Amino acid sequence: MPEPIGPRGFTRRRLLGGGAAAAGAVGLGAGAIALTGRDAGAAAPATEPFYGPHQAGVATAPQTHAAFVGFDLRPGLDRDDIAGVLKIWTGDAARLTQGAAALADTEPELAARPARLTVTVGLGPAVFTAAGLEHRRPAWLRPLPPFAIDRLEPGWSDGDLLLQICAEEATTVAHAVRVLCRSVTSLLTVRWVQRGFRDAAPGRTPRNLMGQVDGTVNIAAPDFDRLIWDDGAAQPWLAGGTSLVLRRIAMALDTWDEIDLEGRELTVGRKLGNGAPLTGSREFDEPDFAAVDAHGIPVIPPSAHIARARHTHDGERFLRRGYNYDDAPAPGQTSNSGLLFAAYQRDVDAQYLPVQQRLADFDALNVWTTPIGSSVFVIPPGVPEPGGYLGQTLFES
Amino acid sequence: MPEPIGPRGFTRRRLLGGGAAAAGAVGLGAGAIALTGRDAGAAAPATEPFYGPHQAGVATAPQTHAAFVGFDLRPGLDRDDIAGVLKIWTGDAARLTQGAAALADTEPELAARPARLTVTVGLGPAVFTAAGLEHRRPAWLRPLPPFAIDRLEPGWSDGDLLLQICAEEATTVAHAVRVLCRSVTSLLTVRWVQRGFRDAAPGRTPRNLMGQVDGTVNIAAPDFDRLIWDDGAAQPWLAGGTSLVLRRIAMALDTWDEIDLEGRELTVGRKLGNGAPLTGSREFDEPDFAAVDAHGIPVIPPSAHIARARHTHDGERFLRRGYNYDDAPAPGQTSNSGLLFAAYQRDVDAQYLPVQQRLADFDALNVWTTPIGSSVFVIPPGVPEPGGYLGQTLFES
Ligand code: HEM
Ligand code: HEM
Repeated sequence: MPEPIGPRGFTRRRLLGGGAAAAGAVGLGAGAIALTGRDAGAAAPATEPFYGPHQAGVATAPQTHAAFVGFDLRPGLDRDDIAGVLKIWTGDAARLTQGAAALADTEPELAARPARLTVTVGLGPAVFTAAGLEHRRPAWLRPLPPFAIDRLEPGWSDGDLLLQICAEEATTVAHAVRVLCRSVTSLLTVRWVQRGFRDAAPGRTPRNLMGQVDGTVNIAAPDFDRLIWDDGAAQPWLAGGTSLVLRRIAMALDTWDEIDLEGRELTVGRKLGNGAPLTGSREFDEPDFAAVDAHGIPVIPPSAHIARARHTHDGERFLRRGYNYDDAPAPGQTSNSGLLFAAYQRDVDAQYLPVQQRLADFDALNVWTTPIGSSVFVIPPGVPEPGGYLGQTLFES
Repeated sequence: MPEPIGPRGFTRRRLLGGGAAAAGAVGLGAGAIALTGRDAGAAAPATEPFYGPHQAGVATAPQTHAAFVGFDLRPGLDRDDIAGVLKIWTGDAARLTQGAAALADTEPELAARPARLTVTVGLGPAVFTAAGLEHRRPAWLRPLPPFAIDRLEPGWSDGDLLLQICAEEATTVAHAVRVLCRSVTSLLTVRWVQRGFRDAAPGRTPRNLMGQVDGTVNIAAPDFDRLIWDDGAAQPWLAGGTSLVLRRIAMALDTWDEIDLEGRELTVGRKLGNGAPLTGSREFDEPDFAAVDAHGIPVIPPSAHIARARHTHDGERFLRRGYNYDDAPAPGQTSNSGLLFAAYQRDVDAQYLPVQQRLADFDALNVWTTPIGSSVFVIPPGVPEPGGYLGQTLFES
């Protein structure tokens, strides 16, 4: 029986340093330890449920690490190919999130610490075209209109499919990204990978890299059915789904660092120290946009980020669940930092766009922030129970 | 009195959206909140001591996140300039590691969560030339000799000064990198930034991105005085210091993923599941390199990584304290992963080189690992108490 030959002429004989080849089974696949990779004696790792009416990773309390991966469809794919991708991802995600190795896991040992892993799948406009399902495309699913503040780079924008992978451990994210990318290389190409992080600050609002408490005003569980989860009225297949607007926003930290504390606080309308509005003293105090000082000057300037971003009615609210990014600076630069701004809402046009337009028109923060990437994805509903797959209602209903 | 003008014509009036400028102090610098940025009510963040006979970040239990920053000296710097850099870094590090903002902190609010931050400073060969202190240069302080396995890229190699910044939070690392880089931009240029992470696995050995339990055999506290900390015999100024060899080693995960479990285990000489040697059943069992199977074949192949890396005598041991890296893959690639291999020892030539030479000559792992960066730094002793600075014994004794 010939010896099995691996990459670069790897054989067991070579590995043995020239000794005689051992008889016996060499073919014990890595998959064989798929479910036993968990070290004995380790504390049970925390997991987030995979099955349910909604995908995890949206309402889930944000984990400390994230990777957003944008894919392009290879030319010529049809509906079955795309459904095939989603079936593979469903199977992989159902296992990985529960601490089991994926079926074709490359490093099954790394699956043993799920660390609250969530895998969230999104679809871009091209999926509907390629699948011949234009009539099922949500009306708002298209790139955002251009804004005067944008300096978008194609390499950070758009994408036909999205994986959003979040966990409390960077190793877990790295492993999940790798497994999920590898299993679909024949059908998709990776367009971009954006990695981010947040403070591990249980019970506290984290800070972004400008130093601001970021995430104070957000929507909470009682609002989710109304503001995040689609009810299927326009597109029955989408009931339980939502949308993601992902904006990569660079921070000009060098010039930000030149302005003083008062300037910084007026820019946002909140205190740097504890995130309280300039009209209050505690983080969650309600800002008073009408308050003026002794000279009649608004305490929170009308140009302040929170004044401009504040919803004008309930239907303009959305969930923010962003991550800091901090990549290696280009030669001669001192920083390459910013925000992976991620907003989730039922209707991009109704909820997100008016706020984005107001900010693009006029926002004191714009001097130091520049959108360099932009994508919109529909996030299909969750998989209710084993046997189903992500996107099934789109393809089969 | 003219209004103060900030970058890009920023004025308080503009910020106020055209309203009348407020009278009163605008100049309250960001530094003013340096020591009050810590939010009221937050749990006291864990800190690592800064002052002591040794720099922190070597014997310190490894934190989950690290950045290694390599700098080049700008042309024409002299001894005082370099001592100046080290004084600035000493002051910044003494504050940041204890949860206080640096003196010229850019985002003082981000200093409030030190998260076991350590800042470790290293010096490359050029420091001794520029400072006219060649006679104080340790004999082993020079680039490693070339090895046949090397594919070194200048952009990941060498460097005149090093900052090693480790903490339990990525935001803390990002902030410290930024503050420490910014404070010296007139004297140094950034050559490379290498970011890495480890599992948060208290009491367990972490895994690298090949899935291996990595860090089992290492040296521990009782060995540190003998093997890590210089005793000043050759260079009195260096007593309490050590050396760092930093190798950036790329992992060919695509081909690694093609070999089966047995192949993987024979490559390292340990089990993937729990890191036990192939001759044992538990992680910390002593490997038996002489054991043979029923056919007379060594159970741990002589080519296995641990067989080749094992010290042949006590004087070949060193501390490994590396980090995984996982950067965005280049277009068309599925991974850009590897190890920031960091080894600390009193004497690079005596302790590190023989092991590295053995591995370069012959190591089953070499098929899947390629050194793409390499640097050697001397790590000066710690600052015993406030008032001193890093490198003081080098410059002043
Ligand atoms: C780098 C860019 C950005 C930074 C640094 C930033 C930072 C902040 C900060 C510090 C706050 C106040 C604290 C809080 O309530 O979370 C805030 C609030 C908010 N931001 Fe942003 N933001 C950015 C971009 C955006 C974008 C692109 C949008 C939407 C298009 C947005 C929408 C909001 C909203 C809706 C609020 C809450 C306003 C309120 O009702 O009080 N932000 N942001
Ligand atoms: C990507 C490259 C590398 C990988 C993936 C790797 C991985 C491993 C693994 C899995 C072990 C066994 C568990 C342990 O004791 O920690 C190990 C042991 C070891 N490695 Fe590496 N290693 C790499 C590079 C190096 C290099 C460059 C050196 C030194 C020049 C080195 C020196 C050692 C030593 C001294 C041991 C302990 C051996 C013993 O006495 O049992 N390794 N390595």
